[in-house]
Amino acid sequence: MRIVVLAGGIGGARFLRGLKQAAPDADITVVGNTGDDIHLFGLKVCPDLDTVMYTLGGGINEEQGWGRTDESFHVKEELAAYGVGPEWFGLGDRDFATHIVRTQMLGAGYPLSAVTEALCARWQPGVRLIPMSDDRVETHVAIESDGERKVIHFQEYWVKLRASVAATAVVPVGADQAKPAPGVLEAIAAADVILFPPSNPVVSVGTILAVPGIREAIAEAGVPVVGLSPIVGDAPVRGMADKVLAAVGVESTAAAVAEHYGSGLLDGWLVDTADETAVARVEAAGIRCRAVPLMMTDLDATAAMAREALTLAEEVRA
Amino acid sequence: MRIVVLAGGIGGARFLRGLKQAAPDADITVVGNTGDDIHLFGLKVCPDLDTVMYTLGGGINEEQGWGRTDESFHVKEELAAYGVGPEWFGLGDRDFATHIVRTQMLGAGYPLSAVTEALCARWQPGVRLIPMSDDRVETHVAIESDGERKVIHFQEYWVKLRASVAATAVVPVGADQAKPAPGVLEAIAAADVILFPPSNPVVSVGTILAVPGIREAIAEAGVPVVGLSPIVGDAPVRGMADKVLAAVGVESTAAAVAEHYGSGLLDGWLVDTADETAVARVEAAGIRCRAVPLMMTDLDATAAMAREALTLAEEVRA
Repeated sequence: MRIVVLAGGIGGARFLRGLKQAAPDADITVVGNTGDDIHLFGLKVCPDLDTVMYTLGGGINEEQGWGRTDESFHVKEELAAYGVGPEWFGLGDRDFATHIVRTQMLGAGYPLSAVTEALCARWQPGVRLIPMSDDRVETHVAIESDGERKVIHFQEYWVKLRASVAATAVVPVGADQAKPAPGVLEAIAAADVILFPPSNPVVSVGTILAVPGIREAIAEAGVPVVGLSPIVGDAPVRGMADKVLAAVGVESTAAAVAEHYGSGLLDGWLVDTADETAVARVEAAGIRCRAVPLMMTDLDATAAMAREALTLAEEVRA
Repeated sequence: MRIVVLAGGIGGARFLRGLKQAAPDADITVVGNTGDDIHLFGLKVCPDLDTVMYTLGGGINEEQGWGRTDESFHVKEELAAYGVGPEWFGLGDRDFATHIVRTQMLGAGYPLSAVTEALCARWQPGVRLIPMSDDRVETHVAIESDGERKVIHFQEYWVKLRASVAATAVVPVGADQAKPAPGVLEAIAAADVILFPPSNPVVSVGTILAVPGIREAIAEAGVPVVGLSPIVGDAPVRGMADKVLAAVGVESTAAAVAEHYGSGLLDGWLVDTADETAVARVEAAGIRCRAVPLMMTDLDATAAMAREALTLAEEVRA
């Protein structure tokens, strides 16, 4: 079975770990979000790609869900001593090496997809990880600050401000000019199932869908497209998805997110058992819906979620 | 008193520490060798500049004479895990930060001299440190390996091969097209004394002198130019200067090095007391010479050497 997954960072990575357990023989291609990429200290940092790679490759800091295990922060300490920031982005020494290798390869002319493949040759994530695009896309967020409108990088909004101010717009800058990376459209066309993990529907899955050609390819693939709600009981399971949902005018409920994706794209949708009442609304929107436990508390619970998604996909197919 | 010092790495840096103690009120400008600069992992590494900066700024690893104190090597470990080399160049995590800041500033368009000034704003070395040139100069070494002539980067010869094969030529690639960095010629013209520390006469001081205009400015400055022999008892005090001296056809003796600089450049020369017999030969070459202890065993011994150099300069001036 060929499965394509559109993944953001922590939620996507953890879901993928469950999916690998649920479908050990599946051929999994992950289209990774690069909209939260950022240049820091002259280095190209791809947080979502790295979170998937580290999580599936056994290098992740399990507790925080991003960054490397057994990490130290001497480079960052020294950069701060030079007065070079930002200090709010926590790059560790081991993590720096990834960004150094990536930046060196990009500088030598390799596209990000080739660089990601090279990095994965070490990590052996057990999936094929492809960035959504080799072209530069960076999500920016418009905020109101002291009555003034300001547009800042997504990471500044997310990591520095902790989404503490209201976002008025979220724009994946460069997406309209970006092309899907080599292999993305081919993987979608060849897929048996396409899954949207419980990732952020705006700044993770939404950014991937903003690359011209990807949404269309998914809609036209003619295979079940099943998503899992990142909203449980009207709040994000993790992170601050409600803040960016508000910016795009979508209420922070499991049903509203399904409607936001729409029946033109989505065939099936899993909501948490806490959101039973959403099922009828989602189905009314033409999307088959089931309520199942959606908390990724451990690997087994996550694998069960993945199995539910695959089961729903087969229901849709039938 | 305005003193200009042409400095390589470890020898130059340690001498400078002695000079600062010997002449605490002097205005010292250091023209640093950049011929051993190398691009590693996409980063610009300037070993000699950093050794001077770290040594005078209190950040040096005292035992090894280069690199940072309290150092860790996680970045390097990870780069090796990615299969990215070279592994023979020992960059530590704290040291990496310096190269990251430098590379980022160079990428933003700052010349190396401005970058060096910015880095020194943190380290406060107590001297003005200027790279010999803002232009790229990299010393390459020709060797015979298995009957074949090969040209390799100086660092590969020095650090990887430990100068274990004979060098047939030493070429500061790019030097002929390089211009002295802003401030270098001005400092030389304004100097009261110019000193050559016991640095490598070929790949440290020699490379600086290879930048068109610097040798001429020193010769025409009309002030005492005094050097200290890096060769004691026919062997380098430290390092493998004999190997590169052989490549340029200079015997590895205190007198031969003085003659190599020549009386057109050098007014005074200090040899070690072990090389008493060299004094007559050096003076016969038109260079005033004294035999004094030249082992930089501690700061006081080094300061005494610096005082001897300044005394010889005054003798020459008189």
